[in-house]
Amino acid sequence: MTFKSFAQDSQARIESYLDRQLADATLLDEAIRYSVFNGGKRVRPALVYATAQAVGLSFDSADPLAAAIELIHSYSLVHDDLPAMDDDDLRRGLPTCHKKYDEATAILVGDGLQSLGFQQLSLTPAATIGATLETLCEAAGPNGMVLGQAVDVASAGSALSYEQLRAMHRAKTGAMIVASCLLPAIVAQVEPAELAALQRYADAIGLAFQIQDDILDVTSDTDTLGKPQGSDIRNDKPTYVSLLGLEGARAELTKLHAEAMSSADELTGDSAALRGVADYIVSRVL
Amino acid sequence: MTFKSFAQDSQARIESYLDRQLADATLLDEAIRYSVFNGGKRVRPALVYATAQAVGLSFDSADPLAAAIELIHSYSLVHDDLPAMDDDDLRRGLPTCHKKYDEATAILVGDGLQSLGFQQLSLTPAATIGATLETLCEAAGPNGMVLGQAVDVASAGSALSYEQLRAMHRAKTGAMIVASCLLPAIVAQVEPAELAALQRYADAIGLAFQIQDDILDVTSDTDTLGKPQGSDIRNDKPTYVSLLGLEGARAELTKLHAEAMSSADELTGDSAALRGVADYIVSRVL
Repeated sequence: MTFKSFAQDSQARIESYLDRQLADATLLDEAIRYSVFNGGKRVRPALVYATAQAVGLSFDSADPLAAAIELIHSYSLVHDDLPAMDDDDLRRGLPTCHKKYDEATAILVGDGLQSLGFQQLSLTPAATIGATLETLCEAAGPNGMVLGQAVDVASAGSALSYEQLRAMHRAKTGAMIVASCLLPAIVAQVEPAELAALQRYADAIGLAFQIQDDILDVTSDTDTLGKPQGSDIRNDKPTYVSLLGLEGARAELTKLHAEAMSSADELTGDSAALRGVADYIVSRVL
Repeated sequence: MTFKSFAQDSQARIESYLDRQLADATLLDEAIRYSVFNGGKRVRPALVYATAQAVGLSFDSADPLAAAIELIHSYSLVHDDLPAMDDDDLRRGLPTCHKKYDEATAILVGDGLQSLGFQQLSLTPAATIGATLETLCEAAGPNGMVLGQAVDVASAGSALSYEQLRAMHRAKTGAMIVASCLLPAIVAQVEPAELAALQRYADAIGLAFQIQDDILDVTSDTDTLGKPQGSDIRNDKPTYVSLLGLEGARAELTKLHAEAMSSADELTGDSAALRGVADYIVSRVL
């Protein structure tokens, strides 16, 4: 199976699973579904399933983990787009939640999606639920993703060093990518060495993903991106391209890809899909 | 022990526990602590400890449950105060989080507090963590508190019937009050009949709490309330007082108090503190 078909299968699987999980109709249901089913690439669920394959966890057991990660990722996008945060009108070519509905709805949709994300973990085995909950909360909360967004908002317009930018991204996007690889491994109760290799793999691709984002922001066009081309530069956001130059950023990307591949080598199981994710991240065009 | 001293002990206990749990220093730490340690009465933790006493759960085991509830309650206050929601400048006489800091910080503080709340459940016994997580997520999420706030925001300025107002409050504030009584009972693995009695008790005091809020909004003064007196009326919010009249609301409060007491009678354990909470709710002046 090629990685492209693995990624497509992962995407179809999580779309279908989330569709069934979000079937309850409440006042917020339409806005919740609008924010979850928005044409997202489902990179994090693909990582969850790819890791599940590498650690011998069934895809049925991985479903709630993938959903937990994706619902929390979805909440973060809705809140990051708010006027008080990044103030984005478009996401993937469509109006953001607060433009389609209103700000109060967007705040509540994000809040609700976070609860729904953690709720998915209640469907996982009792033996590991404490550890998965602890790991996901650390990744999502004020030591992880929320901290990263706070640093990002606070640092707009100021000069960050490469190390500061990397620390910000490790929290803002890296922590949830690492969690995508750790959760299935925790449920499968793998050995510590296997967990450490997955952590190194995920650290590398998490940073690579962000660097590729920054490269695409300056090399791709608005239609392909689904948001205005060059918007990070115009918003005075520090990026890897502004710090390292375009060629420097591409060299760093190549190095991180090699790191991810050598970490995948250390895994005892079938790491083909994890390698495929790493290849995809450095070669993607949107 | 009088209920007053039980409530004071509960308050001191949860303040100290939260102080230790929130010791990590991050960029958001100051704003998180500002929003959690704000002179709150800690009614929900008192309910958790009172229920723990009734079901024979140790207070040490109840600490993370009380913290989970209070952290999620704290997040909801920070988000409810935002300009796009209730647009409140003051809470308990102090600037609300977005006035003290800014809107982006308040959004992120709320988001972070929700993660920290669920994280507390990772400290509870493996045998019941799935059930407590499911219960707390249902109470906090888009079928519970978040739904209630959405209905509340959407219904400002429109006429609600008593049944509609009651359904809104059952979601907005009732669900988390019920969860405060169910979580310790779930961890203690009580019989279904005991759980049902606690549910009835909590339903009654949850509604009573809201009715007393509405009564205080028109009978108390701004200094005592810590927010402008009569603000619900001015904001065109439907209240029990506007629907039932002041005397009608007081009569309903008396009926709910009796319901709570008769439900407490059905419990086999020491329900003195739960009775004390019910007495407090109908007699409180702020």
